[in-house]
Amino acid sequence: MSLLRFDRTTNDWVVFCPSRAMRPHDARLPAASDGHADATGCPFCPGNEALTPPEIYAVRPLRGLPHDWTVRVVSNKFPALRIEEDPSRHDDGPIFRSMGGCGAHEVIVESRDHNALLCQQPVLQIEAVLATLQRRLGDLLGDRRFQSIIIFKNHGASAGTSLRHPHWQLIATPVTPRLLRLKQIEATQYFDQTGKCLYCVLLEDELADGRRILAQNSDFVALCPYSSHVPFETWILPRLRQASFGHVSSERLHSLADLLKIVLLKLYRALDNPDFNLTVDTASRGEEDEEYFAWHLRILPRLATPAGFELGSGMSINTVLPEDAVAFLSEVAVTTNHTVAPTPTTAEARP
Amino acid sequence: MSLLRFDRTTNDWVVFCPSRAMRPHDARLPAASDGHADATGCPFCPGNEALTPPEIYAVRPLRGLPHDWTVRVVSNKFPALRIEEDPSRHDDGPIFRSMGGCGAHEVIVESRDHNALLCQQPVLQIEAVLATLQRRLGDLLGDRRFQSIIIFKNHGASAGTSLRHPHWQLIATPVTPRLLRLKQIEATQYFDQTGKCLYCVLLEDELADGRRILAQNSDFVALCPYSSHVPFETWILPRLRQASFGHVSSERLHSLADLLKIVLLKLYRALDNPDFNLTVDTASRGEEDEEYFAWHLRILPRLATPAGFELGSGMSINTVLPEDAVAFLSEVAVTTNHTVAPTPTTAEARP
Repeated sequence: MSLLRFDRTTNDWVVFCPSRAMRPHDARLPAASDGHADATGCPFCPGNEALTPPEIYAVRPLRGLPHDWTVRVVSNKFPALRIEEDPSRHDDGPIFRSMGGCGAHEVIVESRDHNALLCQQPVLQIEAVLATLQRRLGDLLGDRRFQSIIIFKNHGASAGTSLRHPHWQLIATPVTPRLLRLKQIEATQYFDQTGKCLYCVLLEDELADGRRILAQNSDFVALCPYSSHVPFETWILPRLRQASFGHVSSERLHSLADLLKIVLLKLYRALDNPDFNLTVDTASRGEEDEEYFAWHLRILPRLATPAGFELGSGMSINTVLPEDAVAFLSEVAVTTNHTVAPTPTTAEARP
Repeated sequence: MSLLRFDRTTNDWVVFCPSRAMRPHDARLPAASDGHADATGCPFCPGNEALTPPEIYAVRPLRGLPHDWTVRVVSNKFPALRIEEDPSRHDDGPIFRSMGGCGAHEVIVESRDHNALLCQQPVLQIEAVLATLQRRLGDLLGDRRFQSIIIFKNHGASAGTSLRHPHWQLIATPVTPRLLRLKQIEATQYFDQTGKCLYCVLLEDELADGRRILAQNSDFVALCPYSSHVPFETWILPRLRQASFGHVSSERLHSLADLLKIVLLKLYRALDNPDFNLTVDTASRGEEDEEYFAWHLRILPRLATPAGFELGSGMSINTVLPEDAVAFLSEVAVTTNHTVAPTPTTAEARP
């Protein structure tokens, strides 16, 4: 059972997915109980495919047996939202409104390796993951009940990881989530006033200043933004403005994979494998071709704990200026040239 | 050094308080390094008053020696915002804007006891803490540079506590923080449309439904709200609508202390002393007498970890329905009758 309830005081929806198997006081258990520190019994390891819900998509370069995949997508076994739910709305009282938890919740297993981190993968493997995310994004936006697709990755216990085997997740929501709506409103207003994409201006200004640029290549720029909300927050922005991550060409996807690996390696080495969350902020349904927005990738290290001030105010306290973060990370030299393994370049989908 | 930077993409301010003593990669250190698990060397323990910044206020029922206090307020040794900073704004580029980190950051030591939790304090001691918060709120709103006062308490490591000796904090901000602004906008719109205070209607509807009411007395109601963002989120709302927590009468403050103790005891016993954050959401400067808002207290247990979905969408996922939370907590019987110790009732301020 899954549903959404509207919070009239803050004008946003909350997702409820109470597990019937859990009693209320078990709210803290899921993250700790199912870690699979080693590969034994890990549902994401090759050979254990039967332990997951049915496969949605997989990259199988060799057209081989069921376990010969390099990237694999399955439904989340404990989904926050489900395709089967009815998205119609209900009044539960004068100001109380709910709707069915209609959506999708998928897991993208990023490699066969239980222990290798994303930054340790060959660039071509990272590229295959990004291409898989694009494919799932496009497929889910084909379902007109879904408004936004949230693409994210959690790394480490303090970032909310419950399964160790590296993976991404993707949640399709039947409403436009609060943060995406806010970003759309601000970017639309800026476009109305100036005729420019706010994210393009932000990128231009950051490049002109230069102090917060972490790395760049011909297609993408990685930076710690001027108003970073957390220490070492890092964004990757495209030089060619596109509102949807789904529109990035396959050539540029390789370039993005290369820069993402460099950034993650810098964070890994400089900060000793920090926990982090990664999100891909992309246009909601119907906004994919709008001029006012540019998709971007955010990496949010979990070095600090938001506490009462953040929860009471909605503001962030950041103890590290982004200029200082970049200066610190720049001391770590990283190249991807020698880490590219000869991974097959053609991906085949099954089913 | 402390400053604020404006995030043009989300229309809010970020507080930066880089410590000169810390290098960037020490971002994770402060919370772990200064825990004072026992009372030795604890700056908040009686006798160690010299270890804190100068005292701002204290309750000294016996007009005794400097260490004969029962509640004590000092400046935070590592303040997020400082009274000395200049609040004027600066343009750092076409879309980059900053301002000095002008504000205040105070610590309210809630009792002399290093180990007793707030729920274990006598009602009169809790009342003395609430009265001290009111006094500091009124004093800080007297400084016209401050727009909002964020009152909060962190309990437990996962809630961001860095010092074990129980305390509250209070941060005065030179801008209206994002969440308070959002709540003001929504409540104002609701009032414009209906002529009613949204929070009063919410309380009426919750009382009419009844399933989410946790406890109540003649002056206040404790409930787990319909659209709780986290498991076991609990609000306390006043029956007599007042926009500012500072306007609560001293008689009602006793009643609030009593209900707060009951609620905290229920959470403590049912959930085995959970980590939590507590905030008092009160009217910003100039809104203290407005009809559209009612101050309220929020307790946010830290049973779950917000992860990539929450950071990417701004939405919450909650695994426990508030009705189920109340049913579970209601099995815990609690009274405060026998825990009220004979604490002096007259509080004297010094200096």
